[in-house]
Amino acid sequence: MSFSLVLKNKGPLAQAIEKVDTSSSVNLESTLKDNEVLIQFIASAINPSDVGVIEGWYPSAAELPLVPGNEGVAKVLKVGPGVSKLAVGDHVIPGKGLFGTWRTHAIASENDLLPIDKDLDVYTAAQIMVNPPTAYRMLKDFVTLKPGDCVMQNGANSAVGLLVIQLCKAWGYKTINVVRARPNPDDMAKLVSKLTEYGADHVVTEEDIANDEAMNEIWSSGTPKPILAFECIGGENANNCIRHLADEATMVIYGTMTKKPIAVPAGPTIFKQLRFVGFWLAKVYRGNPEEYHRMSNELVSMFKSGQLKAPKVVPVKMEDYLEAFEKSTNGFSEGKVLLTTDV
Amino acid sequence: MSFSLVLKNKGPLAQAIEKVDTSSSVNLESTLKDNEVLIQFIASAINPSDVGVIEGWYPSAAELPLVPGNEGVAKVLKVGPGVSKLAVGDHVIPGKGLFGTWRTHAIASENDLLPIDKDLDVYTAAQIMVNPPTAYRMLKDFVTLKPGDCVMQNGANSAVGLLVIQLCKAWGYKTINVVRARPNPDDMAKLVSKLTEYGADHVVTEEDIANDEAMNEIWSSGTPKPILAFECIGGENANNCIRHLADEATMVIYGTMTKKPIAVPAGPTIFKQLRFVGFWLAKVYRGNPEEYHRMSNELVSMFKSGQLKAPKVVPVKMEDYLEAFEKSTNGFSEGKVLLTTDV
Repeated sequence: MSFSLVLKNKGPLAQAIEKVDTSSSVNLESTLKDNEVLIQFIASAINPSDVGVIEGWYPSAAELPLVPGNEGVAKVLKVGPGVSKLAVGDHVIPGKGLFGTWRTHAIASENDLLPIDKDLDVYTAAQIMVNPPTAYRMLKDFVTLKPGDCVMQNGANSAVGLLVIQLCKAWGYKTINVVRARPNPDDMAKLVSKLTEYGADHVVTEEDIANDEAMNEIWSSGTPKPILAFECIGGENANNCIRHLADEATMVIYGTMTKKPIAVPAGPTIFKQLRFVGFWLAKVYRGNPEEYHRMSNELVSMFKSGQLKAPKVVPVKMEDYLEAFEKSTNGFSEGKVLLTTDV
Repeated sequence: MSFSLVLKNKGPLAQAIEKVDTSSSVNLESTLKDNEVLIQFIASAINPSDVGVIEGWYPSAAELPLVPGNEGVAKVLKVGPGVSKLAVGDHVIPGKGLFGTWRTHAIASENDLLPIDKDLDVYTAAQIMVNPPTAYRMLKDFVTLKPGDCVMQNGANSAVGLLVIQLCKAWGYKTINVVRARPNPDDMAKLVSKLTEYGADHVVTEEDIANDEAMNEIWSSGTPKPILAFECIGGENANNCIRHLADEATMVIYGTMTKKPIAVPAGPTIFKQLRFVGFWLAKVYRGNPEEYHRMSNELVSMFKSGQLKAPKVVPVKMEDYLEAFEKSTNGFSEGKVLLTTDV
């Protein structure tokens, strides 16, 4: 049996999605034409942007009804007579945005799929299109960093945050990682130790960055002030980060957990020559497919060699999607929720 | 007699400046060495940044005591035996920052002075180093504009604002100019008509930009949304300007009349891919002297041909500097105040 999770009318996640049986149109017996490929998704990610499209706060040009999901890894089950780049058994990921990965099976053009190394762990492959490129491009596209330079980020415990830490470690950049303080000292110690294991140089709380003394310890430890900062929280936290930026630093804004704006102060912006820029992966994807291909290969190698570890995942069977939605939207999730099928 | 206006201790403008007699060291009989040149300032500008240095809120590396003033035009009265690039009677402007133009006479190295066309009106020459390059560089250094593109600015009636309007007119860019509403309708009409004569396409009030209907008239008139904006006010005015920016627009922050921060909204910044950048002319000056020379020549030609008009000036004798300070700091000044001497 094959089915799709379908969005017909935008609304709260759990109510907006309907399970639609596609057994009659998409099954192992489907007749494929030309360059068509029949695939089965092994694991499909639930990303905040997917939830945003469904709930209506994330811009999307796609018309309804649609199958949500931009990320996932699938197995090729069958190929059409004209298919040349893919073979049965290959693992593939979507080669374009808005592919719709929240379905067990799909028939797609081989041109809309990218082969991905079968030796790469499928849970890693399932979440390789959004967060790793986000971390990668934010580190590459705004400031030319050299080893020893410092990058600051808030929301450092997020999936993107953990990848930023690891890429900085691999490339020799120091990181200052801002996290929400945990009420329980043990939890806080665990969080610090987790980020440190990933390669974080400094882990500080939102209270620390509001406090010059706490930060002065970092500067006197030899870590230079950050020339690049990643901001996904907003409000006071963002403002406190701005205070610590080096001259001519760039702050990349890529999210807003608090939905509060960032109060940019004119004086430092002018005299320290600061820059604030928005980052949206969807825009970057459209820009340079060759570079994307090169980067994907580099990221796959880094994951395979162990230089990068994918964030922890919470696999949930695709048919239990309501449970998956529940797990993916609670604030302290244990990892990225993946919708899985048995292959 | 020669004298300098000297800053010994930072403080409020009128109290911080002292008139110091320099007749014994700087006079027509001074013996000049090598590349030294004796000059007399004809007109020296009082700029907000000068006031900022004196009052302490503008960053400056200069040690006290100092003679303020970055801008002014002087006449060469005498040249030393090794001087090759300047002759008696030439008009010159400072060739480096922090020159100190608030003095009747100075002895300087010819290398620190730039000759400026004697046919250029001296009041224009006296204010050619700060505002025209600010307007010019803000239009050139952040976004590549093409004719028909739209630039939005607030504080449009400022000296920089009027130059932005004229440069845009000369280069074929449309401008949306935001001004404070005048309580008296006649004053408002005069202001609109003044900016229109300078070449403004649209003049709107701070209330207008908070009002989508008023702005929709502009968009429906065929003017596209601004891809470049200049911001020198801060606070709510800035936020209202941000709402009207085109996708991928850049807002250049170069001043802050209200001293209030700019609330940058994460959503539009990310999804419209907006950029916010600080502009500080002092930084740009240090970057590329050749380009500066080329630009200066271009600006001089534009002023001589009448394509650019210098903002209105209020000349005040240098000995009446207290009166000049008073005129330069009242909020509705009639023009840039210049300290003048008779040559």
